[in-house]
Amino acid sequence: MSPPLHLLPLLLLLSSFPVLTTPSPTYPKFLGRFSHRKPTQTNSNSNFYSYETRYYTQQLDHFSFIGDTLGGDSYFQQRYLLGSTDKWARPGAPIFFYCGNEGDIVWFAENTGFVWEIAPRFNALVVFAEHRYYGESMPYGSKEAAYSGAKSLAYLTSAQALADYATLIVDLKRNMSSEDSPVVLFGGSYAGMLAAWMRLKYPHIAIGALASSAPILQFDDIVSADTFYDIVSNDFKRESESCFNSVKKSWDVLEAEGNDQNGLAKLTKTFRICHTLNNTGDLINWIDSAYSYLGMVDYPYPSNFLMPLPANPIKEVCRHIDDNSDGKTLAERIYAGVNVYYNYTGNYTCFDLDDDPHGMNGWQWQACTEMIMPLASNPETSMFPPYDFSFADRDYECRMTYNVSIRPHWITTEFGGHNISTVLEKFGSNIIFSNGLLDPWSGGGVLKNISDSIIALVAPLGAHHIDLRPSTDEDPDWLVNFREAEINIIKGWLSDYYHAIGASRSVLSDRSEHTGVSSR
Amino acid sequence: MSPPLHLLPLLLLLSSFPVLTTPSPTYPKFLGRFSHRKPTQTNSNSNFYSYETRYYTQQLDHFSFIGDTLGGDSYFQQRYLLGSTDKWARPGAPIFFYCGNEGDIVWFAENTGFVWEIAPRFNALVVFAEHRYYGESMPYGSKEAAYSGAKSLAYLTSAQALADYATLIVDLKRNMSSEDSPVVLFGGSYAGMLAAWMRLKYPHIAIGALASSAPILQFDDIVSADTFYDIVSNDFKRESESCFNSVKKSWDVLEAEGNDQNGLAKLTKTFRICHTLNNTGDLINWIDSAYSYLGMVDYPYPSNFLMPLPANPIKEVCRHIDDNSDGKTLAERIYAGVNVYYNYTGNYTCFDLDDDPHGMNGWQWQACTEMIMPLASNPETSMFPPYDFSFADRDYECRMTYNVSIRPHWITTEFGGHNISTVLEKFGSNIIFSNGLLDPWSGGGVLKNISDSIIALVAPLGAHHIDLRPSTDEDPDWLVNFREAEINIIKGWLSDYYHAIGASRSVLSDRSEHTGVSSR
Repeated sequence: MSPPLHLLPLLLLLSSFPVLTTPSPTYPKFLGRFSHRKPTQTNSNSNFYSYETRYYTQQLDHFSFIGDTLGGDSYFQQRYLLGSTDKWARPGAPIFFYCGNEGDIVWFAENTGFVWEIAPRFNALVVFAEHRYYGESMPYGSKEAAYSGAKSLAYLTSAQALADYATLIVDLKRNMSSEDSPVVLFGGSYAGMLAAWMRLKYPHIAIGALASSAPILQFDDIVSADTFYDIVSNDFKRESESCFNSVKKSWDVLEAEGNDQNGLAKLTKTFRICHTLNNTGDLINWIDSAYSYLGMVDYPYPSNFLMPLPANPIKEVCRHIDDNSDGKTLAERIYAGVNVYYNYTGNYTCFDLDDDPHGMNGWQWQACTEMIMPLASNPETSMFPPYDFSFADRDYECRMTYNVSIRPHWITTEFGGHNISTVLEKFGSNIIFSNGLLDPWSGGGVLKNISDSIIALVAPLGAHHIDLRPSTDEDPDWLVNFREAEINIIKGWLSDYYHAIGASRSVLSDRSEHTGVSSR
Repeated sequence: MSPPLHLLPLLLLLSSFPVLTTPSPTYPKFLGRFSHRKPTQTNSNSNFYSYETRYYTQQLDHFSFIGDTLGGDSYFQQRYLLGSTDKWARPGAPIFFYCGNEGDIVWFAENTGFVWEIAPRFNALVVFAEHRYYGESMPYGSKEAAYSGAKSLAYLTSAQALADYATLIVDLKRNMSSEDSPVVLFGGSYAGMLAAWMRLKYPHIAIGALASSAPILQFDDIVSADTFYDIVSNDFKRESESCFNSVKKSWDVLEAEGNDQNGLAKLTKTFRICHTLNNTGDLINWIDSAYSYLGMVDYPYPSNFLMPLPANPIKEVCRHIDDNSDGKTLAERIYAGVNVYYNYTGNYTCFDLDDDPHGMNGWQWQACTEMIMPLASNPETSMFPPYDFSFADRDYECRMTYNVSIRPHWITTEFGGHNISTVLEKFGSNIIFSNGLLDPWSGGGVLKNISDSIIALVAPLGAHHIDLRPSTDEDPDWLVNFREAEINIIKGWLSDYYHAIGASRSVLSDRSEHTGVSSR
């Protein structure tokens, strides 16, 4: 299958054909498998993305004083992007703070246009903070040192990351003499979880959080382990029942082909894998990863988040999988489908299945310690190969990989999740959980309002944190309205805040003037 | 000055005269200076105090995975006291959980009769959990090892202690198949801070907290650093203006006496110090400690919390300080006063000023790391020697003592405190902050309602967490009513909880039957 015609001119212009790296197959579909991608800085609205890169000397361990006995390694430089302060009316104007996820913060900043675009409406200062152990924010002086083993990776945890953000915000506000500035948190995916948890754990630091596509319930047995793959499967079925059926049937077919004489060589050729396959499993992981990611990025317009993709990419994938006009085999049609995901630009001549040969994937560590999100593939409902989740298997793998034991119930102990409505109905406030139902992570998301101010916004046609993406001319009306709803809720938080501190300090009239909240 | 006459018979019966140990003078008046006292187990209502002693294998470091690289030292045995489960109607009946403070948990259990006494009214299971690094709950196998230096003490922090309690509760409920049991937290003094913080940080683990005499605002500059000594001073002035004036004048007099030839020897004799004083400062610290503790335990009935004391001990102290009928010198009168505190039973023939020669006082470590509570003595308003608080001085002392740096703003970063009303007015619920205004720690307490369910109960005549003490026949009416108010609020929390889970699971009728909450 050749690349789509309209991309040929671009393809011909390219002088080199890079080898694509893809996720390692150890763990099926975590957030952040894509975190190794380099930021591209190709956004057009560059005036929104104007920032200064800064570094903050951060405590490696906030929760013990062992650092005091360690010398220089007890601190590291945390990178953060500080938006323009030109129009920021200090003291007291809002700060919009993005809780960095498992990757280079510049890349997340570029893919979170929403925050940059709405900030001027609030005269808000934008801050994007990088998550420890990602991007340039490396403890122990270098990525190699930080990732050298369990001992140095030990401090890559969510609670430490939240404490980083808390410490940074307090220091930033103090240094800018703007202690009264209300902070609104933003985050998508893992960062959405961090934003929600941070509002819950640090209400004194942030007045509210927009947690987009945050699967905070994808732990223990709070939601069914099947939900993730079921949602992806339904995304495919929704576009084409026959596509769903072809995919579902394909695993056995591929397995059988791989078992044939010269089968692996044949599959290697069909799927344009750079190095001859050792087993069919690696190929199957590579294919099913594509489907899961497609579920996440099934946006209604062309996009370039995980990969450059056309609008409604699952529709496009299924168009290829369903297209047997040339008498293609099932394997060839599957290849044509996943090629839409892995090679829409046609830049790649072959594919490398191992993206992380040196264990430098921070999310894999997190998934081996506290981020134990059970995902299973139920043969009754899922188009994926059947897969049962087991804590014991995960623990075994993690002992083998890192010599570390999983703490399967730590996240729910530390952050909750069970009976969330009962727990938070009369506790906590000012959180938006936004979810798109096409997104497989929405299965672990909060989909119902918990209280008047812990709100679930649900977009039936939305994919993974689409609300946080830069606006485009092709945004459907529902998306425009969805974002307006978010903006209005945030306005309400800020208005409440200024009233509250105004009431307690009688400075409301001064403050409301320069916040831009009241009448815009 | 001889011991009070009515104690002479008891004194004569005693065969040995133990040497009393007193607080070391490094830090003026922290919570928990008294934590080295052994529990006495002399309470009469022993049926309330029936429990089993258990141990839970606890993670040394909840917030990193460094333990996985440390081997055996990554866990320790946490002691907890499990009250009788005979009448506890599992599944689902309440658990009353005391968050242990800086000392032996048995001692705190004995001095927290309130929890034991009210539990039967709720059919509640009582749990008293020991704080890490205190009592028998020692990491590294022994107190000597745990206290050997900064490296082993590193994990003695409040956040780790809260995570211990969270982990223990989750495990306990799971093991008893009573996951739906609502947990109500209790704590007095530092433990009150822990209880309040735990409700805020772990709302999914506990439905409410009674935080008694919890000075959560005694950090940074949230309240005046003068408040603690001012309150003690006013406790004395309230009993006797001349007593206040005598104390205020006494410091210069003692200083002058100490500077006389043979002055220190004379003071040593006057104050019956076992070893000849090296300087007057040690004596002054010893005396002013007594006053501060007296402010805490100025109970209206005879008690034995920090020391065996008569009812209204400050009145008794001042009676002696004001009594110059025999032509006593000021120093002699001061001795007669502090002797009420240090030697009311008359058991001691002399006093040893150094109670912690081996640095085994855990609170001193906490006060050198995160518990940086500025206290100052203002010569305008305080009867104490003038004293200015300085972060730099504290940091210097702590570097000298432990080679550790203070984190002066960590507690407010992690737990808040600034603008607490604004922050919590629409966030959080179900906390009682109870305070007695005689208690010097009430200056850092929450004294005003924050919301409908974050309540301040203030007893003008109460001392340090008097509400948590065992009831006595001499309890004044206000105290009886105060406790009833607390009980009614807790009833409301439980009732709300059972309604909420009942509404979501239609099991209310089963549950309300065995909780004893509804109609008692």
